[in-house]
Amino acid sequence: MQHALAVTRAGDFSAWYQAVVDQADLAEESGVRGCMIIRPWGYGVWQRMQELLDRRFRDTGHENCYFPLFIPLSFIAREAEHVEGFAKEMAVVTHHRLKMIDGVLKPDPDAKLEEPLIVRPTSETVIGQAFHRWVRSYRDLPLLLNQWANVVRWEMRPRLFLRTTEFLWQEGHTAHATAQDAREETLRMLEVYRSFSEDVLAMPVVTGEKPAHERFPGAENTYSIEAMMQDGKALQAGTAHYLGTNFAAAQNIRYQTEGGELAFAHTTSWGVSTRLVGGVVMTHGDDDGLRLPPIVAPRQIVLIPMLRDKPEDAGVLEFCEALAAQLNCAQAFGEPVRALVDRKSGRAIDKRWAWIKRGVPLLCDIGARDVASGNVTYIRRDQLRNGEKIQSQALPRQQFVDQVGALLASVHAALYQSAKQFQIDNIRSDITTFEALAAHFKSAPGEGAEEDSSSAGFRGWAQVAWARPEGEALSRVEQQLKSLKLTVRNAPLAQEPIAGRRCLFSGEPAREFVLVGRSY
Amino acid sequence: MQHALAVTRAGDFSAWYQAVVDQADLAEESGVRGCMIIRPWGYGVWQRMQELLDRRFRDTGHENCYFPLFIPLSFIAREAEHVEGFAKEMAVVTHHRLKMIDGVLKPDPDAKLEEPLIVRPTSETVIGQAFHRWVRSYRDLPLLLNQWANVVRWEMRPRLFLRTTEFLWQEGHTAHATAQDAREETLRMLEVYRSFSEDVLAMPVVTGEKPAHERFPGAENTYSIEAMMQDGKALQAGTAHYLGTNFAAAQNIRYQTEGGELAFAHTTSWGVSTRLVGGVVMTHGDDDGLRLPPIVAPRQIVLIPMLRDKPEDAGVLEFCEALAAQLNCAQAFGEPVRALVDRKSGRAIDKRWAWIKRGVPLLCDIGARDVASGNVTYIRRDQLRNGEKIQSQALPRQQFVDQVGALLASVHAALYQSAKQFQIDNIRSDITTFEALAAHFKSAPGEGAEEDSSSAGFRGWAQVAWARPEGEALSRVEQQLKSLKLTVRNAPLAQEPIAGRRCLFSGEPAREFVLVGRSY
Repeated sequence: MQHALAVTRAGDFSAWYQAVVDQADLAEESGVRGCMIIRPWGYGVWQRMQELLDRRFRDTGHENCYFPLFIPLSFIAREAEHVEGFAKEMAVVTHHRLKMIDGVLKPDPDAKLEEPLIVRPTSETVIGQAFHRWVRSYRDLPLLLNQWANVVRWEMRPRLFLRTTEFLWQEGHTAHATAQDAREETLRMLEVYRSFSEDVLAMPVVTGEKPAHERFPGAENTYSIEAMMQDGKALQAGTAHYLGTNFAAAQNIRYQTEGGELAFAHTTSWGVSTRLVGGVVMTHGDDDGLRLPPIVAPRQIVLIPMLRDKPEDAGVLEFCEALAAQLNCAQAFGEPVRALVDRKSGRAIDKRWAWIKRGVPLLCDIGARDVASGNVTYIRRDQLRNGEKIQSQALPRQQFVDQVGALLASVHAALYQSAKQFQIDNIRSDITTFEALAAHFKSAPGEGAEEDSSSAGFRGWAQVAWARPEGEALSRVEQQLKSLKLTVRNAPLAQEPIAGRRCLFSGEPAREFVLVGRSY
Repeated sequence: MQHALAVTRAGDFSAWYQAVVDQADLAEESGVRGCMIIRPWGYGVWQRMQELLDRRFRDTGHENCYFPLFIPLSFIAREAEHVEGFAKEMAVVTHHRLKMIDGVLKPDPDAKLEEPLIVRPTSETVIGQAFHRWVRSYRDLPLLLNQWANVVRWEMRPRLFLRTTEFLWQEGHTAHATAQDAREETLRMLEVYRSFSEDVLAMPVVTGEKPAHERFPGAENTYSIEAMMQDGKALQAGTAHYLGTNFAAAQNIRYQTEGGELAFAHTTSWGVSTRLVGGVVMTHGDDDGLRLPPIVAPRQIVLIPMLRDKPEDAGVLEFCEALAAQLNCAQAFGEPVRALVDRKSGRAIDKRWAWIKRGVPLLCDIGARDVASGNVTYIRRDQLRNGEKIQSQALPRQQFVDQVGALLASVHAALYQSAKQFQIDNIRSDITTFEALAAHFKSAPGEGAEEDSSSAGFRGWAQVAWARPEGEALSRVEQQLKSLKLTVRNAPLAQEPIAGRRCLFSGEPAREFVLVGRSY
């Protein structure tokens, strides 16, 4: 079967991912190692995500602010003393001027910084310093801040959106009077992420707590949303951390209680990033390219006028413009519809395929026949083919306009349902011994020489019972899983009772279910 | 007369500016030299500016994208060869890892970059590279892009918002088939900036062309909007550049014409930054603090419940919440009104002054008496005092709600009118000789020892006729003006005829009027 992309998901998932990102005009390599150029269509998706997340953050009482890109090395050094597992791959600024030396532009030796500056990998240290100044009394709490920013973490094996040296994200940072408030905040933001992923991105996720060894360094609890990609791997798509008083103690964030005593604040942090765009690609994309969930599609409907250099062309263009204007007055998901007439020069068939690859939810080729009949012929991107054939449907113009909101909602629902079914179908919950687990994950077709190819060894996830080991015992489990290239993703919240089950690793009475799988 | 701030504009303008920024919770020093923390109220203003500018950019056909923070030194070096007046104060990244060496965290000598990376001071080079790849045919033109980003230019004498090492901005970059298209684009975006400044920020500006020696390096023409601050200095608040084919030639941005030939594209760039927030402060602030133009005020109306620990308190709070809900359903400037009930604990009088200093356009103290009478008592921030006394007005509740859009529009108009009158009153257009110019700008009170104090020597601007000198002659004029601490701000567009006038500097027949003044 002929598809729009030269590679398929089944053939080489990793090459397929690359092809979708490229052919959908989402992003490209910049020539600066690990840094990407986010192209207008890709940035449009991210800007929609930003806008809708920002609204949710505001509705839950958060305010935006902006902290510096640079962090003095001494701040980071203080952090490093406190935090085990501290990562050191950071961009270091050492000079503040260039100079032409013997005809070559170089860092000016006379402009060496007394103290190197680090390009922020995250802003806990500098925000913690500000919290120390701003928090005085219980009246100042809770302090609920968020920042939209770029951050840098040096990546040796970068992949567009999924793992880049520079990426865009938001980082929420909050301080609370009590542990309970801070814990509630952590779970509230986890729920914001879940709802955003599922209700906006149509990307089903599992919310749960990370095991001890996967916690954010310094956190008491780390929670994540995990999404299943079409190669069966997990994508950690967002995290929320309850930091206890650990950061407050390190940074002296104290407040006067109503009773007049001094107490450490309880803090949280939480974030999602441009990685979400990669998640959308790997959740919804097919062998014809991207399929965008309509709520974040920069354009939800594209009208392509089929022009033939004939007198009827003017009528076709007029029909398209009038229809687009009508559609843009209609509503979908409580907002105005975003329709576009693609008037660029070029063949209509080429334009059609370009928009299919970009994943626009509804696509209309409009020709003289449509104008004459007063019909709108449209393709649903989520129902592109019937067998091998491209399938389209037609509706009288006014009916199309009246139903467009419902149509887009139906595209969203279909994308979600299909992804949700895929997730359900690919979580095994009947594996109770490590041998069975090993057999399941080792018996993958194409395993062996090909095992680094991401499309090989598709096995999804397994939900297994464990005794929630700690210390040495946990390290052993980690090693066992590593031999199968697996990690614990999270312990899903709101689980069914575990009573009577045994730990898959130790045989002890189990305490909870965890999801294990391969991951990005 | 007692004011909310300890310093006045007349007393010490520079200290006054600092006090407004601080007391209005706009921003503060971060501890990282030259980098500021933008606090929620200040970021709220910037976010409104972003939102409204972004809409204007989209409406004029531009798309957003994102380019890397880091630029390889070799890109910059190529630029330096082409560009005279190339600035070299840039942050240089030389290492990508930290390492604990003898117990001290240091840049890891084994992780030295082969090629240093520059933190972008602007993105012409990296965007030019992409244009080189993306522009193939006349069909790809015009290419109309914009990016919202942080940039870094090392500042030795930083001032919050006005001159910071890191700042937030947008940079538009466009490529066109013809010079005419590119020139039209440049002036279109200049007009977007003018309209935004005046119609959104209530900040009157003069649009005009910069003289040759003040052009962006490499530009054919540089245009600016110049705003007059209350100390009579000019703030260059935005610029738009027609770059001709200079950048296209340096970066090989060529396209195939309809006739099949290869031709260089004509490019433009244009930008505004967080500097605009400083402009709003210095245009509208008074000795009681900030006065925000309502369209960018994060909150346009704040309701302060006056509580007395009595049973009536519940009714007061209920009244406030219901009123805020009603106001938030009303419209102002074509958008929903943004009202807030300030329920924080603390004395009502302290809260009132905090909001006055933050510049909220309308402020309502709501007490039991208001609830009983069904009236709303409000303070217009732009008409805060009658003599020494704070003045308030009252309206029946429903009338207040019905009129709130008109009230806010009236605040906007009053701020604009007052600033416009100030600008008109402080541009001298009767100065025709350099001696008269020198006498005007030298006779300022407090001149001499105090001349560095920004409030000393207030003299506004002068509009003078000149022969548009070039080369040597221009340098002489520049030096003459420098002796008076003046610069040419711009040659206003759409000027009256100059016929018969003589150049103030050379006595030759004049070719145009230019504005001269001191500047930020």
